[in-house]
Amino acid sequence: MSLVVIGSIAFDSVRTPFGTRERMLGGSAVHFALAASFFTDVRVVGPVGDDFGDAEYQVLRERGVETSDVERVEGGRTFFWAGEYGYDLNTRETLDTQLGVFGEFDPKLSDETRAADMLFLGNIQPDLQREVRRQCDGARLVGLDSMNLWIETARESLLAAAGEVDLLFLNDSEVRELMEEPNLVRAARRVMELGPRAVVAKQGEYGASLYTADRFFSLPAYPLETVRDPTGAGDCFAGGFMGYLASRDEGAADDDTELRRAMT
Amino acid sequence: MSLVVIGSIAFDSVRTPFGTRERMLGGSAVHFALAASFFTDVRVVGPVGDDFGDAEYQVLRERGVETSDVERVEGGRTFFWAGEYGYDLNTRETLDTQLGVFGEFDPKLSDETRAADMLFLGNIQPDLQREVRRQCDGARLVGLDSMNLWIETARESLLAAAGEVDLLFLNDSEVRELMEEPNLVRAARRVMELGPRAVVAKQGEYGASLYTADRFFSLPAYPLETVRDPTGAGDCFAGGFMGYLASRDEGAADDDTELRRAMT
Repeated sequence: MSLVVIGSIAFDSVRTPFGTRERMLGGSAVHFALAASFFTDVRVVGPVGDDFGDAEYQVLRERGVETSDVERVEGGRTFFWAGEYGYDLNTRETLDTQLGVFGEFDPKLSDETRAADMLFLGNIQPDLQREVRRQCDGARLVGLDSMNLWIETARESLLAAAGEVDLLFLNDSEVRELMEEPNLVRAARRVMELGPRAVVAKQGEYGASLYTADRFFSLPAYPLETVRDPTGAGDCFAGGFMGYLASRDEGAADDDTELRRAMT
Repeated sequence: MSLVVIGSIAFDSVRTPFGTRERMLGGSAVHFALAASFFTDVRVVGPVGDDFGDAEYQVLRERGVETSDVERVEGGRTFFWAGEYGYDLNTRETLDTQLGVFGEFDPKLSDETRAADMLFLGNIQPDLQREVRRQCDGARLVGLDSMNLWIETARESLLAAAGEVDLLFLNDSEVRELMEEPNLVRAARRVMELGPRAVVAKQGEYGASLYTADRFFSLPAYPLETVRDPTGAGDCFAGGFMGYLASRDEGAADDDTELRRAMT
C-alpha cells in the first residue's frame, strides 16, 4: 500500500558527549521515510530551501523514497534545528530553531499523495497536520506524532488532530501531559476516547508500550552499548511501524497481533 | 533455605498527589521481608526505638517473619523518613531523615543469623553492609541494594561492598552513576567485573533489566491504573526476587532462567 509522510525536512546540528556534527540531514519526515523504505514505497511531502542540494536528495532516492512532492522554495532556507544532549542522552536542550521555508508552508499535494492509502503526520504544527489529513481524505490508516512544544502552545489544535487519526505516537510523558493525567494507562485510554484506535507510548531507551481498546503490550528496547546520537529515533521507530503495516494485508492495523509485530 | 535481611526498619511520612500519611511502618528491611515471606522464611535484622510497638511487630509476625534479631533500644527513636512525590510519582524529594537508633547501630548477629544461607543487604550505609557480610561468611548467596546517597557520600565503601556480593540491585540511573558510565549495558558489565554475578537494574514504572555475564533480560512492569504510593516498591521487588530463589534448589542463582523467573 502507498505510504505518505509529511513532516519536517531539516538540517540538524547536534552536540552530544561524544562530539559535534553540523548541519546533518534530518527532520521527522526524513527519518521516518528512510526507516519505512525498508518495508514499502514511501512518498515524502515537505518544503526545503535552496540550500537543500543533490547530496540530500540522493540519500532519500538511494532508498527508493519518492521525492517529487518535496517542495523546493527558491531563495528559502531549509528548516534548521540545533540541540545538545546530556550525559545519559535521555535529556536534550534545543539551542536553536529556524523555521525557514516551514514558516509559510502551505501544502499543495499531488494527486498521487492525495490518493495515499496510509498517511503519517510527522511532528509539525497540528493545524498543518489537520490540513494534510483533510486533503488525504481517502487514507485508510493515519498515524500522528507530535511533541511537548505543541501540547504547550497549540493544545486544542493537537487534541482535534489526534481525534482525526487512527494511531497516535507520543513519548509517554507527552501522553500524560496531553491528557493532563499522570497515570499512563488512564491517559492512553482517554486518548482513545478522542478517536485513535491505538496509542503507542514511546519510552526512549526503555522501549515502547502499545495501548489498544482493552489490551496492553510493552516491548523493552534492544540494549545498545554504543549510542552516539538519538535524534530521530522516534521517527525511525514510527517509520518501521507504519512501513511494516503498509507491507501487510489491508486490515493489519485492526489486528492487535499485527500492531505488536509492527512495534517489534 | 534461610534468608536474612538487614536494612532499615522505619516510620515513613509520605505525601503524594493523592494524600498524606504520617508514620507508616516502612524501611527497606520491612518491605523486603514482607514480600519475601510469601516464598520463604525470613529473619529481619535491624534496630528500632521504644516507639516501635506491638502493632508494628505484629505486621511482621503475621507474615511469619522472624523478629528476634530486631534490636530494641530503650530510650531510642526508630529511624524516620519523610518524603514527597511529584505529580507522576517518578520523582521524590526527601523532606526529613532522622537516623535515630540507626546512628549508632552496631550489629550483633545471633548464631542463627550468622548461619544464614542467603543474605540481603538492604539500603544502609555500605560499611555497615560490609560488616554484616563479614559476619555472615557462610552465606552462599548475597544480594545488595543501595542508593544515590551512598554513591555520592561513600562511593569507595560502596564499590568495595558491591565487590563482595553476588547480586546487585540498583536503580538504572544509580548503576550509571556508580560506574560513572552513561551507557547502562557497559555500566552493568563494569559492575560485574567488580564481582557480582548479576546486576538487576530497577527502572521504576518501566520494569527492570537483568544483566548476567553474557546475557540480557528485560521485563516491563505490569501497568497499574491506580498507584497511591511507590515507597518501598524496589525493596518489595528485591524481596520477591530473593525469596523466590530461597524457595528453589541450591544452585538456582547460577541459572539464568531461574534469575529471570525470580525477576518475574
